[in-house]
Amino acid sequence: LTIVDDPLAARLRSIVGETHVLTDPAVTSSYTVDWTGRWRGACRLVVRPGSVAEVASVVAECARFGAPLVPQGGNTGLVGGGVPAGGPGPGSVLLSLRRLDSIGPVDRDAGQVVAGAGATVAAVHQRAREAGWDFGLDFAARDSATVGGAVATNAGGERVLRHGPARAQVLAVQAVLADGRIISRISDRAAGGPVKDSAGYDLGALLVGSEGTLAVITAVRLRLVPLLPARVVAMLAVPTTDAAQRVVGLLRRRLDTLQSAELFHADGLALVCSELGLPLPFPEEHPTYLLVECAGRADPTDGLVEALAGATEVRDAAVAADAAGRAALWRYREGHAEAINAAGVPVKLDVAVPPAVLARAESDIRRAVRAAAPSARVVLFGHIAEANLHVNVLGATDVADAVTEAVLHTVAGLGGSISAEHGIGRAKAQWLHLSRSAEEIAAMRAIKTALDPAGLLNPGVIHS
Amino acid sequence: LTIVDDPLAARLRSIVGETHVLTDPAVTSSYTVDWTGRWRGACRLVVRPGSVAEVASVVAECARFGAPLVPQGGNTGLVGGGVPAGGPGPGSVLLSLRRLDSIGPVDRDAGQVVAGAGATVAAVHQRAREAGWDFGLDFAARDSATVGGAVATNAGGERVLRHGPARAQVLAVQAVLADGRIISRISDRAAGGPVKDSAGYDLGALLVGSEGTLAVITAVRLRLVPLLPARVVAMLAVPTTDAAQRVVGLLRRRLDTLQSAELFHADGLALVCSELGLPLPFPEEHPTYLLVECAGRADPTDGLVEALAGATEVRDAAVAADAAGRAALWRYREGHAEAINAAGVPVKLDVAVPPAVLARAESDIRRAVRAAAPSARVVLFGHIAEANLHVNVLGATDVADAVTEAVLHTVAGLGGSISAEHGIGRAKAQWLHLSRSAEEIAAMRAIKTALDPAGLLNPGVIHS
Repeated sequence: LTIVDDPLAARLRSIVGETHVLTDPAVTSSYTVDWTGRWRGACRLVVRPGSVAEVASVVAECARFGAPLVPQGGNTGLVGGGVPAGGPGPGSVLLSLRRLDSIGPVDRDAGQVVAGAGATVAAVHQRAREAGWDFGLDFAARDSATVGGAVATNAGGERVLRHGPARAQVLAVQAVLADGRIISRISDRAAGGPVKDSAGYDLGALLVGSEGTLAVITAVRLRLVPLLPARVVAMLAVPTTDAAQRVVGLLRRRLDTLQSAELFHADGLALVCSELGLPLPFPEEHPTYLLVECAGRADPTDGLVEALAGATEVRDAAVAADAAGRAALWRYREGHAEAINAAGVPVKLDVAVPPAVLARAESDIRRAVRAAAPSARVVLFGHIAEANLHVNVLGATDVADAVTEAVLHTVAGLGGSISAEHGIGRAKAQWLHLSRSAEEIAAMRAIKTALDPAGLLNPGVIHS
Repeated sequence: LTIVDDPLAARLRSIVGETHVLTDPAVTSSYTVDWTGRWRGACRLVVRPGSVAEVASVVAECARFGAPLVPQGGNTGLVGGGVPAGGPGPGSVLLSLRRLDSIGPVDRDAGQVVAGAGATVAAVHQRAREAGWDFGLDFAARDSATVGGAVATNAGGERVLRHGPARAQVLAVQAVLADGRIISRISDRAAGGPVKDSAGYDLGALLVGSEGTLAVITAVRLRLVPLLPARVVAMLAVPTTDAAQRVVGLLRRRLDTLQSAELFHADGLALVCSELGLPLPFPEEHPTYLLVECAGRADPTDGLVEALAGATEVRDAAVAADAAGRAALWRYREGHAEAINAAGVPVKLDVAVPPAVLARAESDIRRAVRAAAPSARVVLFGHIAEANLHVNVLGATDVADAVTEAVLHTVAGLGGSISAEHGIGRAKAQWLHLSRSAEEIAAMRAIKTALDPAGLLNPGVIHS
């Protein structure tokens, strides 16, 4: 039992009920550390509202108390954006949105659905598929990550090539502003909502990717995409990243069905196989690998195989059209994060560069890490169509800032972005100036001040 | 010759050159009336900068003079958002972006291109197609409308079903803020830019659809879509709007190739045929018509014909796969605006409703117009997949406000949006509250004040 002497906790209990305000550090600690173990903090309390009205009351009460708030979804973020900072003082209120997990009926003709911020990405997939549609966003953390968090960070993942990032899936947002007022383009009507809406500023579009610093997203109306049940996955061995880009370029020009194109290298594959106990996919080792997935109403296998016949740079290929075979091939790519975490606590960065300089960016990043941490192990993988690299550095936690500094400077020097799809969070706030000009940062601060004048929403995130 | 005694004109001439500041009302009047003749105003002068640096200097100078600015692209807008208001006082400065019409090289691997705000939509099509790609946005005003205007209004058009509205085409924006500072996610590098970028608030996403009230868009980096050269168009006769929705639903479920689905009715078709001198498409008249277009790498005709075989509600059909035949069928749909304008000065509204209530919205709108203007003629057409109706009312200019009020209240009562793809402009500013709550409008005003504290950018647009 916890002794309650925090008047804010008492007020919040009156809003959400006794059991949904947690103050015991033994319980709250599961909310204040991220899954990679890199981000640890402390909170004043955890509050778990069960409706948008409760979120609004909680936020208004925190505003009255001047209590900073950290919104959290599935706590699968990678930049510390959903975990409070530590340090002295009473700490932030951790606002868990997970109980807002309802998903409305699918609007079958229009292809849209309303999901609470706490619904998992996988739950939205399931609801959409039951209705003959699909949800365009997908990534490895789908079973834990919430749509609210995915939208707040503008998450990307494995189908951006075909369907775009989280931003492209959002038709309308419901959110609670810093003072507790609700803004919403989501109606309670059974009829759904308009698919197009250009009546004034798209506040939802601003909230996508704002990482909980401008408002607390409570629900989203999502566009759905056609369900394409016939799928095929191929793992391809190629000599270089340049060759991998040319192969993907050829597939994009020839195929309507391509939806994923993932890049990894021999070092990453070796780590995955050893850590996860997987067999090597090919008799020989190759420098670089591509994993591609095609999907269609009709079986896309023949089309893929025909297109690959023209790809002379492919040295070996494994193709799987059945579910088990597809999952086995995906495991080589999706296993990267798990294998890296099993091998140690990594410095993790997520960057994008102009596609024309991807190969150069890879070698420059490796060189920059070597200079900052000579004994560290660098694993690069990512989404090749967007030239989005996930940079993982093992054995460098003691020089994490130096490694981060070196990699992000390298990326910025190539005209890239220091965050492709994970956001800025706490992890990269001090480096935001590398990707954004002083004028842009001033405009962002002006918007932050306009919507959250007291600075209570996710302090320290994006704005350092 | 014009007698120059306006010190602001003299300052602007020193920035953009003598010939690009126009003060003679005989010349400026072509900028201060919209093409439908519904929006007329006056301006202090027209300034036509030739680069983003000149735009920045012009805006900074206007800020120093406290002079309001109206940005204008191709002047094809439909809500008075690019035309200054009339009234007493020196009037606004009309800032024409048409000279910013350069289009960069296409980044062929990544499928992106940078276009100046003044480049026409058709020019972007052409540049993209020369490089084996296409630009996803398309609408009838393509030869005059600029990409800057299309992005500023979040224009939609005929391919939203497949590629989304203007918002979905924008990877990055360059813009000039109210004080003349430039914000940009567009690099000068030949290598292009990152395709994904989640580093801080997406200011560009906020500017899309902000109608020149938050900043002046000077250039955009656009995502391109695959070039699908094989096309087929079908015009279908159906008994009702509900039937039309069912047919389109069936085509969406069966075809990957569908990219347009347009709705119109017997009254609109009759007007088009009489005003434009076109033959009737079918031996008999039908209540309702659909125009659908499919596109693919391979000829989509067989797929469309097969899918239509299952559409028992189709009473007659005309199919054209050759360019001339496709254009002839499109003329029945795209000719609507021209035919309506030839018949008179219409009250024009652009609304979207939840797709589930489209048929009811049509009959409710007709009834509401009849009550407000018993002798008026209502023509409804639009983009059926998004339940986006273009409402045109002829013979009602004397009761335009009453008709507008009646239609917009009807739409709002059904949970729809008072602007689907044309924006709010001056035309609907007083009705914004029908689609947006007091909380949303307050948040919009807070953002407006944060970015344009003196209120100099497009006053009277969006914010009444």
